[in-house]
Amino acid sequence: MALAKNEFELNHRVTYYEADPTGQVSPAMLINMVIEVSEAQSQSLGVGTDVVLQSGGGWVVTNYEIDIKKLPKQGDQVVLGTRATAYNRYFALREFWVRSLDGDEYAHISSMFVYMNLSTRKMVEIPEQIIAPFQSEQVKRIPRLTKPQQIDETDETTEKEYLVRYFDIDSNRHVNNAHYFDWMLDALSAEFLTTHQLTKMVIKFEQEVRYGETVQSQVTRPDQTQNDQLFTIHEISLDGDVHAIANCWWSKESV
Amino acid sequence: MALAKNEFELNHRVTYYEADPTGQVSPAMLINMVIEVSEAQSQSLGVGTDVVLQSGGGWVVTNYEIDIKKLPKQGDQVVLGTRATAYNRYFALREFWVRSLDGDEYAHISSMFVYMNLSTRKMVEIPEQIIAPFQSEQVKRIPRLTKPQQIDETDETTEKEYLVRYFDIDSNRHVNNAHYFDWMLDALSAEFLTTHQLTKMVIKFEQEVRYGETVQSQVTRPDQTQNDQLFTIHEISLDGDVHAIANCWWSKESV
Repeated sequence: MALAKNEFELNHRVTYYEADPTGQVSPAMLINMVIEVSEAQSQSLGVGTDVVLQSGGGWVVTNYEIDIKKLPKQGDQVVLGTRATAYNRYFALREFWVRSLDGDEYAHISSMFVYMNLSTRKMVEIPEQIIAPFQSEQVKRIPRLTKPQQIDETDETTEKEYLVRYFDIDSNRHVNNAHYFDWMLDALSAEFLTTHQLTKMVIKFEQEVRYGETVQSQVTRPDQTQNDQLFTIHEISLDGDVHAIANCWWSKESV
Repeated sequence: MALAKNEFELNHRVTYYEADPTGQVSPAMLINMVIEVSEAQSQSLGVGTDVVLQSGGGWVVTNYEIDIKKLPKQGDQVVLGTRATAYNRYFALREFWVRSLDGDEYAHISSMFVYMNLSTRKMVEIPEQIIAPFQSEQVKRIPRLTKPQQIDETDETTEKEYLVRYFDIDSNRHVNNAHYFDWMLDALSAEFLTTHQLTKMVIKFEQEVRYGETVQSQVTRPDQTQNDQLFTIHEISLDGDVHAIANCWWSKESV
């Protein structure tokens, strides 16, 4: 398939350790797989993590909007793709797709990135030399991704706690965002997770969590519906402060 | 490179999510990677997990003995290899290697497997039709792997707790053994883990743990030495019962 100049693809065979108990790729691993293709694109354009770090900054993802038609299974040959869609001074919109070799899309993911000064931990303008190689479209206004709805005081919720582990940290020395998906979804019951299919998820990262901290993962009871789908609201908090919010939509069909 | 009839290899590119904070493959991911190649070998010989499950049984690993020269890094192209070395009525010895494209070995792993009847959860004779395709050598006596030393009452230890999560379960509906490595090593400090190199690890699995259980990971203080290397003893317990024991040897050089 012909790729546009701002697109990049990578072949991948789904391993058994990327699959959940139902044999399908877990949402955390889906995110890991697509971040891998964007790392590969950055590397191929000479603006990989090593180069970015030398600029004293780093890319930080603030939002994902994930649409799932079907999750690939263990052993499947898939194509991971990405496109640096558009950017302005502060925001970069990146799309990802996971497709079969025949071109059928499994999942499509939109993501918003900002650029952080690693010394001040503050958001700064995206350096021209870091973004230029992606041949992304420079725009005035970036389309906003869907903002997840927060848990309401009146919602019944369940909660689990997770200790941030050494191996949750990636080679950028930050907690890999993919772990938020495991913390969020594990707060639902195994019975629910094995009998429902995640069809859409929107997530917003508010603040980082650090090694050694214990986060609370809170989820609403999976009995609300939206557009004929079950709807759950997820929050990751630390000492009462919300660090990430997500909404999930589920189809009732068994997987 | 020419492979013997009982050998099988697979190419693999190390992803960023298989790497630890130092950019090297984590021990858990090393195990995941080699189990992946044995799954691929089994599949290619027509005795993959689906066929094995139809026999009413399943392979269970009891021990690993892991020798590490050097851990591959994120982005490295490696070759994962395995050999069904030898077996008798109850035990099957399998070797794994991770090597560079040039043939330099990163790590060599010996493992012992038994066969379990899935209804009774008891060890049974290895079915001939399950083992035959591997062209493994049938022997009277299987060489024993190194037995890890247990924590002594007088050892000073530290301990952390881990909740067994939904996504810790693999598509065989059991906790993926690789997670024991994360639980065991995370009980050491980040300061220790970032400044020491794991050179050898022996682990013995005694009993399964299950979804929803909270395990204790206990480790001795990393100040004992053996053969000029730092030596740690690890135990995973549940309500005081030991479910897995491991010993690790570490070189003091920074990674």
